[in-house]
Amino acid sequence: MSSSILLIHCKDQAGLVYKVTQVIFKHNLNIISNDEFVERTLGHFFMRTEFSGAFEKTTMMKELTDILPPDANIKLSEHQKRDICILVTKEHHCVSDLLIRHHFQELDYNVRCVISNYQNLQDLVSKFNIPFHHISHEGVSREDHEAAILSVVQQYNPEFIVLAKYMRVLSPAFVGQFTNRIINIHHSFLPAFAGASPYNQAYARGVKIIGATAHFVTDSLDEGPIIAQSVIPVAHTHSAKEMALAGKDVEKIVLARSLKLVLNERVFVYGNRTIIFE
Amino acid sequence: MSSSILLIHCKDQAGLVYKVTQVIFKHNLNIISNDEFVERTLGHFFMRTEFSGAFEKTTMMKELTDILPPDANIKLSEHQKRDICILVTKEHHCVSDLLIRHHFQELDYNVRCVISNYQNLQDLVSKFNIPFHHISHEGVSREDHEAAILSVVQQYNPEFIVLAKYMRVLSPAFVGQFTNRIINIHHSFLPAFAGASPYNQAYARGVKIIGATAHFVTDSLDEGPIIAQSVIPVAHTHSAKEMALAGKDVEKIVLARSLKLVLNERVFVYGNRTIIFE
Amino acid sequence: MSSSILLIHCKDQAGLVYKVTQVIFKHNLNIISNDEFVERTLGHFFMRTEFSGAFEKTTMMKELTDILPPDANIKLSEHQKRDICILVTKEHHCVSDLLIRHHFQELDYNVRCVISNYQNLQDLVSKFNIPFHHISHEGVSREDHEAAILSVVQQYNPEFIVLAKYMRVLSPAFVGQFTNRIINIHHSFLPAFAGASPYNQAYARGVKIIGATAHFVTDSLDEGPIIAQSVIPVAHTHSAKEMALAGKDVEKIVLARSLKLVLNERVFVYGNRTIIFE
Amino acid sequence: MSSSILLIHCKDQAGLVYKVTQVIFKHNLNIISNDEFVERTLGHFFMRTEFSGAFEKTTMMKELTDILPPDANIKLSEHQKRDICILVTKEHHCVSDLLIRHHFQELDYNVRCVISNYQNLQDLVSKFNIPFHHISHEGVSREDHEAAILSVVQQYNPEFIVLAKYMRVLSPAFVGQFTNRIINIHHSFLPAFAGASPYNQAYARGVKIIGATAHFVTDSLDEGPIIAQSVIPVAHTHSAKEMALAGKDVEKIVLARSLKLVLNERVFVYGNRTIIFE
Repeated sequence: MSSSILLIHCKDQAGLVYKVTQVIFKHNLNIISNDEFVERTLGHFFMRTEFSGAFEKTTMMKELTDILPPDANIKLSEHQKRDICILVTKEHHCVSDLLIRHHFQELDYNVRCVISNYQNLQDLVSKFNIPFHHISHEGVSREDHEAAILSVVQQYNPEFIVLAKYMRVLSPAFVGQFTNRIINIHHSFLPAFAGASPYNQAYARGVKIIGATAHFVTDSLDEGPIIAQSVIPVAHTHSAKEMALAGKDVEKIVLARSLKLVLNERVFVYGNRTIIFE
Repeated sequence: MSSSILLIHCKDQAGLVYKVTQVIFKHNLNIISNDEFVERTLGHFFMRTEFSGAFEKTTMMKELTDILPPDANIKLSEHQKRDICILVTKEHHCVSDLLIRHHFQELDYNVRCVISNYQNLQDLVSKFNIPFHHISHEGVSREDHEAAILSVVQQYNPEFIVLAKYMRVLSPAFVGQFTNRIINIHHSFLPAFAGASPYNQAYARGVKIIGATAHFVTDSLDEGPIIAQSVIPVAHTHSAKEMALAGKDVEKIVLARSLKLVLNERVFVYGNRTIIFE
Repeated sequence: MSSSILLIHCKDQAGLVYKVTQVIFKHNLNIISNDEFVERTLGHFFMRTEFSGAFEKTTMMKELTDILPPDANIKLSEHQKRDICILVTKEHHCVSDLLIRHHFQELDYNVRCVISNYQNLQDLVSKFNIPFHHISHEGVSREDHEAAILSVVQQYNPEFIVLAKYMRVLSPAFVGQFTNRIINIHHSFLPAFAGASPYNQAYARGVKIIGATAHFVTDSLDEGPIIAQSVIPVAHTHSAKEMALAGKDVEKIVLARSLKLVLNERVFVYGNRTIIFE
Repeated sequence: MSSSILLIHCKDQAGLVYKVTQVIFKHNLNIISNDEFVERTLGHFFMRTEFSGAFEKTTMMKELTDILPPDANIKLSEHQKRDICILVTKEHHCVSDLLIRHHFQELDYNVRCVISNYQNLQDLVSKFNIPFHHISHEGVSREDHEAAILSVVQQYNPEFIVLAKYMRVLSPAFVGQFTNRIINIHHSFLPAFAGASPYNQAYARGVKIIGATAHFVTDSLDEGPIIAQSVIPVAHTHSAKEMALAGKDVEKIVLARSLKLVLNERVFVYGNRTIIFE
């Protein structure tokens, strides 16, 4: 059954739910789920409505625009599969998990290609008949390397870019072309242990819990809006390497969970925070 | 700031959110939070709206009744403290936690009295200036014992009865007088290990996780609608007694959490399940 | 670096650790890790010692036998990869995860073959160059079906059989040939919801947490010794189907974790319980 | 039943477990539990043995000293209650929990006194017949304030000082007198959100999980060795204030758990990390 998703974000005022649901009611549509949230500090209103039924999109958008405040962000889209490109370095566990889910069509994405600065995952990717692009960073400037990646990405015109353990920092110029469209998995419980070698940092600090964080990528390294986090207990018996091994399962599950939320249009970005209607 | 809470439960039909929010909008009330859920199997609609502002209750109830299906359950109440009576046997940890929270007014209840079939907690309860009623079950029939408890409870006319590790089974006759108003904490992850000595059962079964369950009490022992559950890991190093010790902290936190949900009118009972708007 | 693992299980008595470590010390071996546990109820002693260095196995076994009680169970083995056969029905997520880990050699097993009573996973398995045996249960008696499976399994002579969502009950005759060598993943938090359709049972009971359990298979359905369990929260918004979807990630992680424990000789079976040295 | 606890920490070498257990065996003592750990990076050995039976302490210490490396740290003590002083500011939840556990003798400590820079908890503390010392920080220098606290603490000669939400930073001079004897509960998942107002920081960063950390206090604020950590999920619906409310239960449980570990001599401090034999 196909459905449509309406997202609204605007300054809060009285009667917004009433007005929006009136439009949907008048179009004779069937609400599947309805979520609202008002952020109290600054007075912002967020609403996600999923509904089924036929409607004339232009008409509905006009009606919504008429009743909502002028600043309102309105997005009306069909629930459908989105194209993604995956960037990866050497570690396989996140991309493996995404390829398996793609193969069995478990999440709402099509993997259009996998791009890596190493070759070691080519064999895996080719098993699933997905194009693999090896774009080495060796002997080229960061700008040229990113330009080469961008050129490949643009061929596929993906809605989202997924960094499935891609270990190089993307430049603001690159990131700026995909605002809130690049999702990264960081192997720590952010904001703890941002940057390089988080498991070594975690070992040195002697923490008793480690984690993983999926977030949108912004100009500031590991500081973008957080989509999902999860943790597992560790003990003094874990070396940094054993922490890294134990963390892999958390990383892949958190990344897949965050993708599911994003692809189902359940995530609003609001400043550096996210509103998530699960 | 005082607020009001509107609960609606009825057969689902198109336009319910629109119609209810229209009433609230016309009364010029300020919605604080709004939650809806449609159970798809049987097609039931649940809505909880918390709002502030002055309104004429009879008028609003009439308007809501007019627009909602005839079978609709409508509850409109002020957000306020509720009276509770606590029943307990010998273990202190749950009642201790509830008394401390009462003393510092952290949850929306007034503890009117504590009733126990033993005397050992009298000293604790009296520290907090709460009436303690010792009603021994020894040498009296179950009917007479319950009649004695009922007689004390009725003096206080509580909205809820909390079984904070009360280890005797209440009769259907007793339970029937307080439908969905008796909350019990059971020291296992129900439905595993219902009945007596759950930690001994858990030890014998060799489980790696134990838990606690807060639920409404019904005629069927440990089978009432579940409000909240939580778990902790255990290992082969835990004897049944050590599991019981470790479980106490889970029990007291789960019970307090379930009370918070119930007292804030966030729980609908639906058959043997609960709809919880957190 | 290769290592050896010594497992001892016997009636407890004074000086066992001293006597065992004396033998290891005399052989000039380097202890990597040492774990002991005394079960107090019946007075049983468990010890796992991992060490490196060269030694004469027959000599050491004789010395250990001489100093330990006559009933002692002594197992001395090299840390090495074990052969496994995987049985599966239709669901892919557990076998997918095991095949990926096999491909990247993350756990200490070789997948010798995958056996299924359906054909739908043949394509997946063949990607990893693992033999796939389709043995349909249709139109044959349970005895004949199991005989066909057994015949294939015996070709590979595996140390362990892994039921990666194999949905048919194995007969005591079959199970009896692989005592403590068949590992099953059950999609519930046992002992809750044993048997068929645990997610449907969980939905009907209205639990707030669901889980998965990896256990050794015995004659009693879903009642064998538990190796590992894990849980995730659910809410009233989860239908039984959505619970099943959410549970898949827990199932695959718990199964892999239990295999890691078993393959690293970290699990003692003791009655219907397990002693696990993590 | 009384027991003794032997703690050993020294450079690793072959045969340590053998040599130590030989001493215990010769004294005819009954080992209750035995744990060892070798930290591989620097080659350090840690051992905790709990045993029952009568022995001559001087003799055993001499024998242990003779067989262990010269640098060995050896601690041999009876399992017994330890005296603690509690420092607190205004929040009650941690000290309430500790007082209740003291009252019912659940953990191995005697609360000798509670010291606060505010008066609001005097009523609570007096219910449990524990001395309450109000030592205001207003109008006095930090040095004088600490001197006043120290003077009170010294009257009780406690083995440990517990900071149960004491919101002032202790000076290195003060901390230096109680090395590894001051335990603090910090209301974040360290190293995330060290310093002031961690819940405000957590809200601003938009994390999806919050936590609490119990640690030994050192000269560096919130950077001492971590004993225990725990976390709970939060969502966009939590304001900073609601995060703080939700975090209270985690804080009190983590603090009590860390105290149990420390009081049972289960914690070695090793650089800025802890080795914990649970």
